[in-house]
Amino acid sequence: MAVRAAVAGASGYAGGELLRLLAGHPEVEIGALTGNSNAGRRLGELQPHLAPLADRVLEPTTAEVLGGHDVVFLALPHGQSAAVAEQLGDEVLVVDCGADFRLRDAGDWERFYGSPHAGTWPYGLPELPGAREALTGSRRVAVPGCYPTTVSLALFPAFAAGLVEPDVVVVAATGTSGAGKALKPHLLGSEVMGSMSPYGVGGGHRHTPEMVQNLSAVAGERVTVSFTPTLAPMSRGILATCTAKAKPGLDAGRLREAYAKALAAEPFVRLLPEGQWPSTAAVYGSNTVLLQVAHDEAAGRLIAIGALDNLTKGTAGGAVQSMNIALGIPEETGLPVTGVAP
Amino acid sequence: MAVRAAVAGASGYAGGELLRLLAGHPEVEIGALTGNSNAGRRLGELQPHLAPLADRVLEPTTAEVLGGHDVVFLALPHGQSAAVAEQLGDEVLVVDCGADFRLRDAGDWERFYGSPHAGTWPYGLPELPGAREALTGSRRVAVPGCYPTTVSLALFPAFAAGLVEPDVVVVAATGTSGAGKALKPHLLGSEVMGSMSPYGVGGGHRHTPEMVQNLSAVAGERVTVSFTPTLAPMSRGILATCTAKAKPGLDAGRLREAYAKALAAEPFVRLLPEGQWPSTAAVYGSNTVLLQVAHDEAAGRLIAIGALDNLTKGTAGGAVQSMNIALGIPEETGLPVTGVAP
Amino acid sequence: MAVRAAVAGASGYAGGELLRLLAGHPEVEIGALTGNSNAGRRLGELQPHLAPLADRVLEPTTAEVLGGHDVVFLALPHGQSAAVAEQLGDEVLVVDCGADFRLRDAGDWERFYGSPHAGTWPYGLPELPGAREALTGSRRVAVPGCYPTTVSLALFPAFAAGLVEPDVVVVAATGTSGAGKALKPHLLGSEVMGSMSPYGVGGGHRHTPEMVQNLSAVAGERVTVSFTPTLAPMSRGILATCTAKAKPGLDAGRLREAYAKALAAEPFVRLLPEGQWPSTAAVYGSNTVLLQVAHDEAAGRLIAIGALDNLTKGTAGGAVQSMNIALGIPEETGLPVTGVAP
Amino acid sequence: MAVRAAVAGASGYAGGELLRLLAGHPEVEIGALTGNSNAGRRLGELQPHLAPLADRVLEPTTAEVLGGHDVVFLALPHGQSAAVAEQLGDEVLVVDCGADFRLRDAGDWERFYGSPHAGTWPYGLPELPGAREALTGSRRVAVPGCYPTTVSLALFPAFAAGLVEPDVVVVAATGTSGAGKALKPHLLGSEVMGSMSPYGVGGGHRHTPEMVQNLSAVAGERVTVSFTPTLAPMSRGILATCTAKAKPGLDAGRLREAYAKALAAEPFVRLLPEGQWPSTAAVYGSNTVLLQVAHDEAAGRLIAIGALDNLTKGTAGGAVQSMNIALGIPEETGLPVTGVAP
Repeated sequence: MAVRAAVAGASGYAGGELLRLLAGHPEVEIGALTGNSNAGRRLGELQPHLAPLADRVLEPTTAEVLGGHDVVFLALPHGQSAAVAEQLGDEVLVVDCGADFRLRDAGDWERFYGSPHAGTWPYGLPELPGAREALTGSRRVAVPGCYPTTVSLALFPAFAAGLVEPDVVVVAATGTSGAGKALKPHLLGSEVMGSMSPYGVGGGHRHTPEMVQNLSAVAGERVTVSFTPTLAPMSRGILATCTAKAKPGLDAGRLREAYAKALAAEPFVRLLPEGQWPSTAAVYGSNTVLLQVAHDEAAGRLIAIGALDNLTKGTAGGAVQSMNIALGIPEETGLPVTGVAP
Repeated sequence: MAVRAAVAGASGYAGGELLRLLAGHPEVEIGALTGNSNAGRRLGELQPHLAPLADRVLEPTTAEVLGGHDVVFLALPHGQSAAVAEQLGDEVLVVDCGADFRLRDAGDWERFYGSPHAGTWPYGLPELPGAREALTGSRRVAVPGCYPTTVSLALFPAFAAGLVEPDVVVVAATGTSGAGKALKPHLLGSEVMGSMSPYGVGGGHRHTPEMVQNLSAVAGERVTVSFTPTLAPMSRGILATCTAKAKPGLDAGRLREAYAKALAAEPFVRLLPEGQWPSTAAVYGSNTVLLQVAHDEAAGRLIAIGALDNLTKGTAGGAVQSMNIALGIPEETGLPVTGVAP
Repeated sequence: MAVRAAVAGASGYAGGELLRLLAGHPEVEIGALTGNSNAGRRLGELQPHLAPLADRVLEPTTAEVLGGHDVVFLALPHGQSAAVAEQLGDEVLVVDCGADFRLRDAGDWERFYGSPHAGTWPYGLPELPGAREALTGSRRVAVPGCYPTTVSLALFPAFAAGLVEPDVVVVAATGTSGAGKALKPHLLGSEVMGSMSPYGVGGGHRHTPEMVQNLSAVAGERVTVSFTPTLAPMSRGILATCTAKAKPGLDAGRLREAYAKALAAEPFVRLLPEGQWPSTAAVYGSNTVLLQVAHDEAAGRLIAIGALDNLTKGTAGGAVQSMNIALGIPEETGLPVTGVAP
Repeated sequence: MAVRAAVAGASGYAGGELLRLLAGHPEVEIGALTGNSNAGRRLGELQPHLAPLADRVLEPTTAEVLGGHDVVFLALPHGQSAAVAEQLGDEVLVVDCGADFRLRDAGDWERFYGSPHAGTWPYGLPELPGAREALTGSRRVAVPGCYPTTVSLALFPAFAAGLVEPDVVVVAATGTSGAGKALKPHLLGSEVMGSMSPYGVGGGHRHTPEMVQNLSAVAGERVTVSFTPTLAPMSRGILATCTAKAKPGLDAGRLREAYAKALAAEPFVRLLPEGQWPSTAAVYGSNTVLLQVAHDEAAGRLIAIGALDNLTKGTAGGAVQSMNIALGIPEETGLPVTGVAP
């Protein structure tokens, strides 16, 4: 019997990607779609790529509308998920694509988000040590941020193997869909095309404490992360260049072995053969993460580079993957592993 | 029992898209992959987006390698398909993505391609009157050109209903994948980004006789087509603006009715609601064609605009759709109808 | 002694391009810069590419601020120019980049813009027959729309030589800057990149009557224009494919001769050598228009294709060119004729 | 009397940009243009954006052709400049846009380029301490690499003021023109659009020793640089995110003061006001470099971000700037400081 799923925030980019994936998921039946300012509009006007759902009409985001589903995906602005989740029963699986329940440290939350901390839910990055177990059977899931997904997957094997110092520098490029559909001048096509630009520089990006949390847990000590995000002239994709100071004795062989071992059983993370590097194009629309690592001997640094699609594995694909685990559906169900390229 | 499929020309863009679709087709098992200059290389180097097939190795394009499959897809340069097809048995379904068997008129072929005409195979555009019947059970299929697919679908309902004069002007934009992986200076990213440019202007494009053939057959009289293709700064997609001189008495109501009727049963062609226009983004990676029509009264012209993905419905998706019909598999099997957007 | 120029609407794209050109114009001194919602802000925040003007502060758009200049450029939303212009003296050169004074026919204006007609000023397309004379010494200039500039230049030589019928079909692609800085969902980078989409289809675009006006004047008879604009994934540039039914006797030689003759003395319009076609990349940031023509014998149509930069020759460059003529400055002064490529 | 300038390698991207700038330089007269495989072709076919030079014909790159000029710009593949330069007299200013004469250490050269070291010429980055003096009156100039230009300008003030440790991590994005016009599969538009991809990872990029050389000279000690370049979906521009471990006592005020002081007199380098960050769009076609700095306290790192146009300030603009200095022409002559945006 099909799992009935509702999507709150169906008019946004994360909501649209959830619907693209759920429409192809053999165990899911799509139930209510909600929006706020867009309630009453046809989905076809807002998400013209979702042809089979074009005649669906958005409803308001209320407990009444969202009630009666087996799974509710929340793709809402940060800070709005807690109120909605409270009104849904404990037996309903709530998968929050927002940030509200990602951080364990209330102080971190308040510093970066400026509001009271709502709590912490099982963290939807199954590849991290212990995460898959915590998700199994859970009825609450906090989907990670797109950058923390990329950076954590790119670096955790090195920390798990004790190969690097807790001194990390990350520079990442994202496609514009990562910024959502908000009407801001710097997101206009005229501004974005042909341009690379940084933002949130100097430690201010809200995804920084999430990276610190994930990597510190694996390292067993406090990891510092200097994180600089940049906006790239493309719609989708994250390419994260992650470096960490090498511990003495690091060499290319041990490095490769550590990554191969940590990732061997993962269906969605691929360590590329030597000599090949990830690109965002290769994971467009796919739930696959591509990784490659190198040891820069002259600079004494490990360099790990990860590419994923911020809307798929970085948001909606990760959310569906966690839903599968939580509900006992085989983890790979309904998730594309080929990209749409070129 | 699964249909075993081989792909000749697996290192190119059409070949890659065939493999993306076939990898998700529940009735197909992917057999041999061949290439010429790339024989011996891992597919992962050439098509890094096809993660599950990364370790497959390309074989040479020979009858030995291609033999023993139920279906052979040919994604070869124009003029090479006939020789390969001849060596494959009559019981094997051969689906040619090249131009060799599209045209009925040997004179047209020779004028536009400069070589002897190889013959004519059932034409893989099932939506055209009579085409679906001709494809059913066939063991040879000529996949249409990407432009003729778009233009024929955009205009055939108007000709079928006798609403327009046989005087057609088409201007279309294509993504660069339509030009293939050939290493030509004007296809470099540096040249393409930020640039719109025309090519094959003045009647010289090889897809022109194919449009004339299709539309004339529906119209029952010789249709002239002035066709100007342009290269757009995007990887995929065709947007074709097709106009034809209106016959007296054309009005918006009759126009819409004719299109709605002609397309009602089509799973892959959608006439958009009034006020909404097609975009290539909405069909990225999808086998869907989006259409809209208008009557420009002041200019006395019908305007029909179609958008599709040149690699999906325009090539590989159309090929798989025809394979399904030829083999008696339900027509929609294995074909995505949602685009990857934004 | 330098001409003092003010720019009203300095925070928009047309205003920014005016400032880029005026900053390099040897006879001009830049005076007041005005904006409405942006009054009080540093130009550097709004137009970071105009490094030498970064510390200029925007003032409100009032007669007091704009008074006391030799030239006032108006880059305002349609319908706002008349009120401002009235308050400036007759001795001040007012160059209106908006639509208000372009059309001669009040009925056309009211039909397409829905407000009372403000009047008609000398038309700033010096290349059209008689236009340069009308601009000389004028103190009012209506800068043409970017599409009418392209289409009129591409087709007027054919009409002037009597080579074509008054039955024109135009399909044009524009970069997103043509839509301005308005915060509209379809102009977001995420929506625009990778997408071609039409708009204003079926005769509704406001630039249509302007094309009809220009071509009819040259043809000496009413010309109908079926015009379809499309939005392309690039910031700047227009590529217009213009076709007209050929009159009997048209041949490639007469065609080329007519264009060569009509354009021989034009500093900013280049008929390309045979075999070469225009691209928007080649005119990026330049005041040059590139043209090529062909005779499609099979379809009985002339095809003329023009490329220009919608912000340079299509708006601000055209405005400065007309200013030069009006003030008796050599026409080419301060106007780049090389594009920035690749 | 005008300086007569020849350009060797006029068909490439660096050559084209040199010609764009020289065509607008009031003290320069463009002499011979040379190419190898393209000798005999019209420049208009190869560089259609250089409208005023369209009818120039390329000559072979020989000492005869290049002789008799005051300045010869070499835009040749690495390793070819020495042979040409030797044949030109000592009184001719030779400006080499290639790498041949950039490195001081022959071992570095051999390790990264694999051929014998040709020598070291005055280094054409006038903003570095002592560089302007060395260029004045020189008849040989080694134009820096585009990445080293960006990174050296972004970090030298911090090293000059002793604010950071010699432990640098740089991740930079470049437009595709940085890779030149070579016909390589990964440079095709279909591959590049929508994709970010790294290359030369792990210390292998040839620009690394040049950065080390520049920063070590300013720091007075050996600086290590972990450098990861990435290819971005845009034609032009470099955005370099440069971080260095902060020395104790670094604070935002001292940081800003150090940069303001080091750059105060520089006509082409602008430290942006606080809160504003560089973008490549803002320097498109301009010789301006935009910089911003931040102190990431939590991570203990300085972050300096620089943006420039790799073909202008990063190559041809830097070359013309050095030519001006060498010949005693005012340094800013003929160099645009406004970008073409949006």
